Amino acid sequence: MALKQKDLLGLRGLTREEIEEILATAEEMKSILLSKVKKSSHLQGKSVVTLFYENSTRTRFSFEFAAKYLGAHTASVAVSSSSVAKGESLIDTGKTIQSMGVDVIVIRHPMSGAPHLLAKHVSASVINAGDGINEHPTQALLDMFTMKQKKGALDGLKVAIIGDILHSRVARSNIWGLTTMGAEVRVAGPPTLMPPDIEKMGAKVFFKVEEAVRGADVVMGLRLQRERQQKGLLPSLREYTRLFGITEERIRLAKKDALIMHPGPVNRGVEISSNLVDGAQSVINEQVTNGVAIRMALLYLLTRRNHDAVR
Amino acid sequence: MALKQKDLLGLRGLTREEIEEILATAEEMKSILLSKVKKSSHLQGKSVVTLFYENSTRTRFSFEFAAKYLGAHTASVAVSSSSVAKGESLIDTGKTIQSMGVDVIVIRHPMSGAPHLLAKHVSASVINAGDGINEHPTQALLDMFTMKQKKGALDGLKVAIIGDILHSRVARSNIWGLTTMGAEVRVAGPPTLMPPDIEKMGAKVFFKVEEAVRGADVVMGLRLQRERQQKGLLPSLREYTRLFGITEERIRLAKKDALIMHPGPVNRGVEISSNLVDGAQSVINEQVTNGVAIRMALLYLLTRRNHDAVR
Amino acid sequence: MALKQKDLLGLRGLTREEIEEILATAEEMKSILLSKVKKSSHLQGKSVVTLFYENSTRTRFSFEFAAKYLGAHTASVAVSSSSVAKGESLIDTGKTIQSMGVDVIVIRHPMSGAPHLLAKHVSASVINAGDGINEHPTQALLDMFTMKQKKGALDGLKVAIIGDILHSRVARSNIWGLTTMGAEVRVAGPPTLMPPDIEKMGAKVFFKVEEAVRGADVVMGLRLQRERQQKGLLPSLREYTRLFGITEERIRLAKKDALIMHPGPVNRGVEISSNLVDGAQSVINEQVTNGVAIRMALLYLLTRRNHDAVR
Repeated sequence: MALKQKDLLGLRGLTREEIEEILATAEEMKSILLSKVKKSSHLQGKSVVTLFYENSTRTRFSFEFAAKYLGAHTASVAVSSSSVAKGESLIDTGKTIQSMGVDVIVIRHPMSGAPHLLAKHVSASVINAGDGINEHPTQALLDMFTMKQKKGALDGLKVAIIGDILHSRVARSNIWGLTTMGAEVRVAGPPTLMPPDIEKMGAKVFFKVEEAVRGADVVMGLRLQRERQQKGLLPSLREYTRLFGITEERIRLAKKDALIMHPGPVNRGVEISSNLVDGAQSVINEQVTNGVAIRMALLYLLTRRNHDAVR
Repeated sequence: MALKQKDLLGLRGLTREEIEEILATAEEMKSILLSKVKKSSHLQGKSVVTLFYENSTRTRFSFEFAAKYLGAHTASVAVSSSSVAKGESLIDTGKTIQSMGVDVIVIRHPMSGAPHLLAKHVSASVINAGDGINEHPTQALLDMFTMKQKKGALDGLKVAIIGDILHSRVARSNIWGLTTMGAEVRVAGPPTLMPPDIEKMGAKVFFKVEEAVRGADVVMGLRLQRERQQKGLLPSLREYTRLFGITEERIRLAKKDALIMHPGPVNRGVEISSNLVDGAQSVINEQVTNGVAIRMALLYLLTRRNHDAVR
Repeated sequence: MALKQKDLLGLRGLTREEIEEILATAEEMKSILLSKVKKSSHLQGKSVVTLFYENSTRTRFSFEFAAKYLGAHTASVAVSSSSVAKGESLIDTGKTIQSMGVDVIVIRHPMSGAPHLLAKHVSASVINAGDGINEHPTQALLDMFTMKQKKGALDGLKVAIIGDILHSRVARSNIWGLTTMGAEVRVAGPPTLMPPDIEKMGAKVFFKVEEAVRGADVVMGLRLQRERQQKGLLPSLREYTRLFGITEERIRLAKKDALIMHPGPVNRGVEISSNLVDGAQSVINEQVTNGVAIRMALLYLLTRRNHDAVR
């Protein structure tokens, strides 16, 4: 019913009904994923290509397994930034891939907006697997799916997101999605890494991690990009941990049964203490499982929608 | 009936009947490729390996999707030239691959004749996906398939191929195949890049692109290898475009409904003007689709033939 | 019956019954592999990941084809040593892979014991595809399977293994497995490359290759790692060949129908003379085929065992 578009480019602009349909479909998909025979025919005879202009084994694998479990053909193109320079344009690459009979192109690109550009020029479905510092919608959907599975509903949840908010497409997609679903999103992090427009997006800004965490239902750490520190944008790791690390002491300020989340891979002892990662409140590994379920749901919903439109 | 050999190594020496069988089979295969469920059992339980000693995501993907759409297992070996030096010989590599149960080896190699050497030493079918400056038979077959689909027949067609003929295995394979099918092949390009034996192969040589294009049914550009220019073998790009670029002005000399073709990826504005690439006469994206169909046809024809011979 | 464990980490400690079950299952699997339709449903809906921290196209392909022929989903992670340094730990990587629904992780790692560490922390089955200088159990199993197919039984066979024993996990696994099965294992090689504990493992040590080969049923060469020579650990190649090369003259000392084996890829003319590699006694290509059969057997036996335990 709800999801009528050809592509999933971001959570900004998605309605509550559309998000609910994706989460409900993911629940069905998760039962396939957890069964002894991970194989269905939802995408039989469809082709899915991952087109990654940035490295990410984790996200790429998640999409590829999702596609395989649904019976699709898969292939993956890794484009190094050097070959982009002398190579064909994104649009020409997309048209070539589509001309081979490909139904879905999953794209990750360092440039914000690249998936939108591609989607305009191909009839295949396009899924944004992360574009610059704009959005990473499937990550936010898997986060929301995990919260919903654990807490029953998203409405009224208090979600604290801690870290380098400025460069985080994960944070941005979560803010768009969670506020649409009626959750309260709090963000905390170093002032230099806090985007100026974040309150307009609907998030509450804190500069002390303790205040963001207090009474939270969910505490989500973000991966610290160590590369950024070398450029002087970040305090030292030790300083970061002292000021913003998610520690056992700080987590006591949250609700007793608060979930601890992280998109992974975790820098243990930097953004989250190692004990918390392995502790009872952590749902970090379950997020990975839910990521496959969410991607299965999207692949199904978009190709179902797209059955008549492809070529 | 017609295609009795184990391998497809080149179009030189193929009969008219054999080429016609391949083109007719490709037509059947294209209907699988364009259907909603791109899956058949023609190659079920067969294994296809792409063994590429030169990079080419485009050609490799085309073969891999062709194999997948027919139900085959696929795997791809990318061999860098550095590892060739210290590694095992081509023949030993081929025997190892074959011993894993592989039915078809698709090889691309910088050395002319490498596929022929391999084919002699393995019982698996070998398909030449480009060897040195010798042949690229599946590219020429997809070009011929495209011309036939658009023009009805190849007999009597006037086909102008423009560019670096000397280094082009695409041009060579097209000359062998098209002349066998009764087409007239005209080649045009810089004199330093015109092989001396080209007229003996059956092509008409022109040094002015206008003369080659005049009255043509098909105008095919070749990809300019910019690397070659650095070695002083090519004029400057600007000079090349001025003298040999396929422009809107020049294309008016061809027949009104002449096809514009290119094996891709195109250097827009160098060998062909960007507008022509996207224009109504261009069949460049359809060539990509037809490439998958041709490779499906060959995989089927060679493994059908080979059913009893493998191992 | 016999094989009850979740993982295959080494041949050390495996019982005769367990090895016999694996070899018997491999025989069944080989008939699938040699059939015209290499496809069964033994692992339908299961996922197999190869996680290789060292390069090996040969071993990785063997596992991947084994998995595909049994109907499993496959994916492969190649981890370069540089990214290990800054990346997540082996255990975190394993848990992430498992959380995507993966049933079997095939791991190759430069550190002895890495597969054991991984196996302790995941519920997925772990297969050791080579760990440091410790074990390479699937190679030894395929060697034993080949000997059994050719000689009828392993009991009482005299097997001479020649080369750099010190760094050879292939030799170590063969010693554990073959002595368990009642074969006599003789090792020969340069004294500097002979581990001190080798006799305690049950092998007979020779420093003259002729004495090891005399009366042998099987003569197995090991791949010479040329890198090691540069570090001064090996004599010159010419010197090595003169002293320890498996030559036609030396092979005459073995039984008339002695098998010539090598895990591949062979340095022709260094550890074995080129003529012997291609000769009638060589079973080197058949070892490759048997490797796929052994890996099919293990994938089946471990996932059968594991059907209820996964997640």
